[in-house]
Amino acid sequence: AMAGRVCASDFEEEAKKILPKSIYDYYRSGADGQNTLAHNLSAFHRWYLIPRVLRNVSSVDLSVSVLGQRLSMPLCVAATAMQRMAHPAGETATAKACKEAGTGMMLSSWATSTIEEVMSAMMAVQGVGGVLWMQLYIYKDRELTLSLVRRAEKAGYKAIFVTVDTPFLGKRLDDVRNRFKMPPHLSMSNFSTASLAFSEDSYGNDSGLAVYVANAIDPTISWEDITWLKKHTRLPVVVKGILNGEDAVRALNYGADGILVSNHGARQLDGVPATLDVLEEVVQAVQGQCDVYMDGGVRRGTDVLKALALGAKAVFMGRPVLWALACQGEEGVRELLELLKEELRLAMALSGCRSLSEVSRSLVRKVDFPSRM
Amino acid sequence: AMAGRVCASDFEEEAKKILPKSIYDYYRSGADGQNTLAHNLSAFHRWYLIPRVLRNVSSVDLSVSVLGQRLSMPLCVAATAMQRMAHPAGETATAKACKEAGTGMMLSSWATSTIEEVMSAMMAVQGVGGVLWMQLYIYKDRELTLSLVRRAEKAGYKAIFVTVDTPFLGKRLDDVRNRFKMPPHLSMSNFSTASLAFSEDSYGNDSGLAVYVANAIDPTISWEDITWLKKHTRLPVVVKGILNGEDAVRALNYGADGILVSNHGARQLDGVPATLDVLEEVVQAVQGQCDVYMDGGVRRGTDVLKALALGAKAVFMGRPVLWALACQGEEGVRELLELLKEELRLAMALSGCRSLSEVSRSLVRKVDFPSRM
Amino acid sequence: AMAGRVCASDFEEEAKKILPKSIYDYYRSGADGQNTLAHNLSAFHRWYLIPRVLRNVSSVDLSVSVLGQRLSMPLCVAATAMQRMAHPAGETATAKACKEAGTGMMLSSWATSTIEEVMSAMMAVQGVGGVLWMQLYIYKDRELTLSLVRRAEKAGYKAIFVTVDTPFLGKRLDDVRNRFKMPPHLSMSNFSTASLAFSEDSYGNDSGLAVYVANAIDPTISWEDITWLKKHTRLPVVVKGILNGEDAVRALNYGADGILVSNHGARQLDGVPATLDVLEEVVQAVQGQCDVYMDGGVRRGTDVLKALALGAKAVFMGRPVLWALACQGEEGVRELLELLKEELRLAMALSGCRSLSEVSRSLVRKVDFPSRM
Amino acid sequence: AMAGRVCASDFEEEAKKILPKSIYDYYRSGADGQNTLAHNLSAFHRWYLIPRVLRNVSSVDLSVSVLGQRLSMPLCVAATAMQRMAHPAGETATAKACKEAGTGMMLSSWATSTIEEVMSAMMAVQGVGGVLWMQLYIYKDRELTLSLVRRAEKAGYKAIFVTVDTPFLGKRLDDVRNRFKMPPHLSMSNFSTASLAFSEDSYGNDSGLAVYVANAIDPTISWEDITWLKKHTRLPVVVKGILNGEDAVRALNYGADGILVSNHGARQLDGVPATLDVLEEVVQAVQGQCDVYMDGGVRRGTDVLKALALGAKAVFMGRPVLWALACQGEEGVRELLELLKEELRLAMALSGCRSLSEVSRSLVRKVDFPSRM
Ligand SMILES: Cc1cc2nc3c(=O)[nH]c(=O)nc-3n(C[C@H](O)[C@H](O)[C@H](O)COP(=O)(O)O)c2cc1C
Ligand SMILES: Cc1cc2nc3c(=O)[nH]c(=O)nc-3n(C[C@H](O)[C@H](O)[C@H](O)COP(=O)(O)O)c2cc1C
Ligand SMILES: Cc1cc2nc3c(=O)[nH]c(=O)nc-3n(C[C@H](O)[C@H](O)[C@H](O)COP(=O)(O)O)c2cc1C
Ligand SMILES: Cc1cc2nc3c(=O)[nH]c(=O)nc-3n(C[C@H](O)[C@H](O)[C@H](O)COP(=O)(O)O)c2cc1C
Repeated sequence: AMAGRVCASDFEEEAKKILPKSIYDYYRSGADGQNTLAHNLSAFHRWYLIPRVLRNVSSVDLSVSVLGQRLSMPLCVAATAMQRMAHPAGETATAKACKEAGTGMMLSSWATSTIEEVMSAMMAVQGVGGVLWMQLYIYKDRELTLSLVRRAEKAGYKAIFVTVDTPFLGKRLDDVRNRFKMPPHLSMSNFSTASLAFSEDSYGNDSGLAVYVANAIDPTISWEDITWLKKHTRLPVVVKGILNGEDAVRALNYGADGILVSNHGARQLDGVPATLDVLEEVVQAVQGQCDVYMDGGVRRGTDVLKALALGAKAVFMGRPVLWALACQGEEGVRELLELLKEELRLAMALSGCRSLSEVSRSLVRKVDFPSRM
Repeated sequence: AMAGRVCASDFEEEAKKILPKSIYDYYRSGADGQNTLAHNLSAFHRWYLIPRVLRNVSSVDLSVSVLGQRLSMPLCVAATAMQRMAHPAGETATAKACKEAGTGMMLSSWATSTIEEVMSAMMAVQGVGGVLWMQLYIYKDRELTLSLVRRAEKAGYKAIFVTVDTPFLGKRLDDVRNRFKMPPHLSMSNFSTASLAFSEDSYGNDSGLAVYVANAIDPTISWEDITWLKKHTRLPVVVKGILNGEDAVRALNYGADGILVSNHGARQLDGVPATLDVLEEVVQAVQGQCDVYMDGGVRRGTDVLKALALGAKAVFMGRPVLWALACQGEEGVRELLELLKEELRLAMALSGCRSLSEVSRSLVRKVDFPSRM
Repeated sequence: AMAGRVCASDFEEEAKKILPKSIYDYYRSGADGQNTLAHNLSAFHRWYLIPRVLRNVSSVDLSVSVLGQRLSMPLCVAATAMQRMAHPAGETATAKACKEAGTGMMLSSWATSTIEEVMSAMMAVQGVGGVLWMQLYIYKDRELTLSLVRRAEKAGYKAIFVTVDTPFLGKRLDDVRNRFKMPPHLSMSNFSTASLAFSEDSYGNDSGLAVYVANAIDPTISWEDITWLKKHTRLPVVVKGILNGEDAVRALNYGADGILVSNHGARQLDGVPATLDVLEEVVQAVQGQCDVYMDGGVRRGTDVLKALALGAKAVFMGRPVLWALACQGEEGVRELLELLKEELRLAMALSGCRSLSEVSRSLVRKVDFPSRM
Repeated sequence: AMAGRVCASDFEEEAKKILPKSIYDYYRSGADGQNTLAHNLSAFHRWYLIPRVLRNVSSVDLSVSVLGQRLSMPLCVAATAMQRMAHPAGETATAKACKEAGTGMMLSSWATSTIEEVMSAMMAVQGVGGVLWMQLYIYKDRELTLSLVRRAEKAGYKAIFVTVDTPFLGKRLDDVRNRFKMPPHLSMSNFSTASLAFSEDSYGNDSGLAVYVANAIDPTISWEDITWLKKHTRLPVVVKGILNGEDAVRALNYGADGILVSNHGARQLDGVPATLDVLEEVVQAVQGQCDVYMDGGVRRGTDVLKALALGAKAVFMGRPVLWALACQGEEGVRELLELLKEELRLAMALSGCRSLSEVSRSLVRKVDFPSRM
């Protein structure tokens, strides 16, 4: 417990003091009334863990295979945009920390570091493990879109996570109030024009990012575009942003190699369920034909364990990584990842699971009356 | 986001600072313990939206037909009394804003502008769209009652919404404490005597409006009066204030052309369900034989969408319009209506609905544990 | 709304300022953790009213027959001990107010006015209506117990309500802390010795009343004592303190003429259900073979209506009467009773009930998610 | 009510003022997010008591047999470590108080008094009753472990409660922040080396006790170790820390003589159910083949009664004993135990139970909406 941080929320508290308000707000906010933001967290309180005792838990194996890569634990880093607003080293720091912790990082299309820079940073760290995946927004300009895919392939990224919940940007009240835009010294590094790099002078009275999305991102995307994407890449394609069994089956039918149950950290449509609450429906719908991942509200080792028990192969974490980055860059993120890893190891030991194969549905039970809502 | 208002509740906050307390209280209050007032809002948190992705939502059509008129969106303005207490231009400002936004306005019997004035104001605005309907209280004086109907017909109103939940006025504690009556320079403009225009000197120690209702409004009204009203007008008659399937069927049997599920903004009988909670029961009871509308607690685009998914053809909004009027008159109401329209458009896009015909029951799912109550 | 009091809770607020703390605490408290105290109130929020409209409610008849006596409304005054601590005129003031309001009063065994005094006071008020019933604690001294019954018979009381939930006094933390005893100038007027009149000098470190009960009240009472009591009086005997169907059937079998569903205002065993929550079970168990009454948490006209819809013939109210007495004696209680009567009348009108015979089970529906807990 | 303490929580309030923060924190804390800590308490609010009246409760017998020993009541003292941090006399004071109250005490392996000292202290008190049981942690050093068992046998302890939920110590945030270790003048008295007596100089940046457990306690323990333990002792062996029916049956199959449903006072794995919520499942699983006990959150007489109604033979209480010890040593604990005994006696009388054999499942009913969460 360096610097007195003993759980993930300690990082947020510290980061809040460090970050300029409009950046903190951008990172923290959920859409509209922020009900789903609350749901994403409270959902974990609606499932009990039912531990089994006397199982000889002297050694606990957390390792898992995600899309063909071996990771030290089933907890990875979700794509979050513009990480250099949190720390000068931005995404490169995060990538290094992931390598150190032996886990994977999903790089946002809207990174403030280039696809290539981030891979180099990760490669520069000694050791085994460490995986990069590319998060993809489909732009109106499809050639540009494919160029991102090709650069990721070439740089050694291991999969494409295509985000399907953002034909328009969700309405995040603080960003509208703050007229959020990027600090002038930064830009979305993978793009070369000001308009695509989110560095224009003015975006009117609205959230600058909402204006950017309306201008650049393709709202016409449909299931056929999964087929299109599959056709243009040899990497596995994971559909990010599925919230029900019906869409999950459709994703499979259109060729998805994996599904990420996500509500975009409650930043798109407010009022949708917590991801944990729909995870099992999706898992049952795909009937084992592909792996299911989830993100949203994961803050503790027990959260990871509950999601795994409900069928996730691995989970992703967004905001806490940003707070850790703001606190202490690469070192902060590493500390956070190790802290969560230890929490998960302890949670598994205390519930009698020696490896992920022993984490089963019977480990969790629905709460009848939540103590916290 | 003119003047920094980014959601409907911003209007209330601003209006609260502007309005005299007893007027603010009159507009805001619910009856008695105000439990239903809380329910009307919290009900929207008891339904999840289940979005579908990858539906090509580049263009979203919000338009709808209400009682034979085409509106730009399925969100209209509910009848609220005495709007000149909020702004000097009162109902005429609201009407103009509705025309500008392409939607409909229900004019209260207790307007502080005449039936004719409001129509003229609306007509004076350029453009297509804009509809007026007449909300009707049935007075003890039936001739007077019919004269309101005839004036509305003549002026070009498109329907009568007859309010059936007010044989007596609900007990609103603040109004009793404040001994609420109208400011002396105003009156209910459609009536010529002080006693009918709610401009007598004294109403004792009680809510002045409760005394007014006890004196003037007919508590004997029964289902036969729907027949009576239908006989005296060629306009469609919508029954406003139905809260269960049984009464809905009765309304149909007595000739109603539409049903407005309403608890009068929680101002009549406290302890009744939220309108959203009974909407589906009513929709199922009428089996498509007439359109069902609802009002009560609609504050966001997602609220509108949930009500439509549960079977409402269109919804109405009361208090926020008063706050907008207080903030900035016609311009305020227009801004509010456009803001909600944009929220609805975004909510539809993010849930994969390109037109109202794609909004179906499967878009919503009952919450098992609400995060907010 | 004399003195600005517009609902029952206004009386408590005012009384709290007037009464000495230990007396206020004695009146207000529930037992132990006071969970049932909270339940008794919140239970009313767990039932919706489902109003029916267009029923011609120009006249609403609230009258009811209770144990053979006609009352102006189905809301009566529950037995509460030692009313002269609230106001010098104590129980005599309450009795007069009941006569004025045309309803009934249950006099506590532990009154600070005699059985005869209270009847005289009530008789002195002009007008029809006004009924007295005697609440009976069974003392270890059975002869003394029967003398209370005989005095009540002789004075013209119309029934005996025998309290069966107090073999020992519930643990009320404030009374223990305050070492509650009666102010020296008062005593339980129906008894002649200091030990029976609760006017001994010291009761140790405990609640004085708890000590009194342990000394004087008979903890051996059993069902046979209902038979015994029936044998010694010609008055109807109502069993006060039943909380389940099993005991209700037993009461019938042992000759009870009525059942009062009560948890003693949550002052005996903490953790028992709200009376409203068990009312229906009791009503169903007795299958119409006797009338069922209830008390506990009744504070508004809609509360009365909900209890009637769930099968109570009439309901009783305890604490609010004490607050009204403290505020303004007889006049305060009269005002309170009239206020509740008007609330009930309005609630019936707004829900479409013209008389109690129209109040049926379909008027209420269980809430799925309470907004207030 | 000596010193004005009228219920168990009064002891905590007082103790909080007396104890050094890091000791108070250690005693009070639950693991991680402390959700289970809240559940353990709120679970008691999720069950109603359904009292039966008129049962002649003049005498109420609280006595019970636990593992062959007669106790004055079904409420015993749970093992809590390091009691001399609360009071100089530590475990010896607790033991004396238990003898005075006629109940049993479970001595922690981590006591700051020796097994023999505690037995002598208890024996020195006059009177019948008073039982000691030994709580056992299984150390990596099995010979050492067995020596604890043998010392307990020799000293006259009546059973072994083997704790199975602590292969590693739960993560208690306050202890990590406080870097909790024992005050220098104290040690775990049953051990002779500094490393086993928890009195090393430094435990790094972590909770000292977590480091101690990782070093000394055996995480390999499995069901076979129950067989092993049974083979080495003639005392009955109770398995402490079971939370589901499956493990309960396994415990039986491996020879356990009793089961203690416990989540270690919510100090091990956060997110597990309240013990009260799983008690009935365990009781049903063992089908009467052994006694079932429970601990966690017991704070009032009605809590004890609810647990008994759900099938516990007796219950244990942890923290309140520490607070009582801090307040006033032996006298404080005695006062607390007598206070709870009186609460239980009253609760039984008021619910119509004259002895524990009359406490049955029908005494409790699940709450549908808890008033407190
Ligand atoms: C500040 C921020 C930026 C994000 N940027 C992206 C992004 O660029 N692309 C994307 O697909 N998801 C993005 N997300 C969503 C995350 O990938 C992820 O779904 C979400 O953060 C998980 O929830 P959590 O923050 O509660 O862990 C972003 C989330 C946050 C909080
Ligand atoms: C201040 C105010 C005045 C109202 N006046 C009328 C009225 O004159 N006639 C009527 O039928 N309903 C009236 N209503 C009820 C509204 O038509 C509508 O049912 C309600 O406001 C919808 O709830 P909302 O305010 O939560 O949107 C009034 C409501 C308010 C808040
Ligand atoms: C201060 C006080 C004194 C009471 N005294 C008696 C009494 O002497 N005899 C009795 O049977 N019930 C007594 N009760 C219980 C009432 O008869 C009644 O059951 C209860 O007050 C109803 O609940 P409410 O106060 O929420 O209306 C008393 C209640 C209170 C609050
Ligand atoms: C400060 C503290 C120390 C404890 N020490 C031990 C221990 O040494 N061995 C053990 O088996 N349980 C231990 N426990 C758990 C208790 O035996 C018991 O399961 C728990 O305290 C019951 O919950 P309660 O505190 O809510 O009554 C401890 C609990 C506390 C609070």
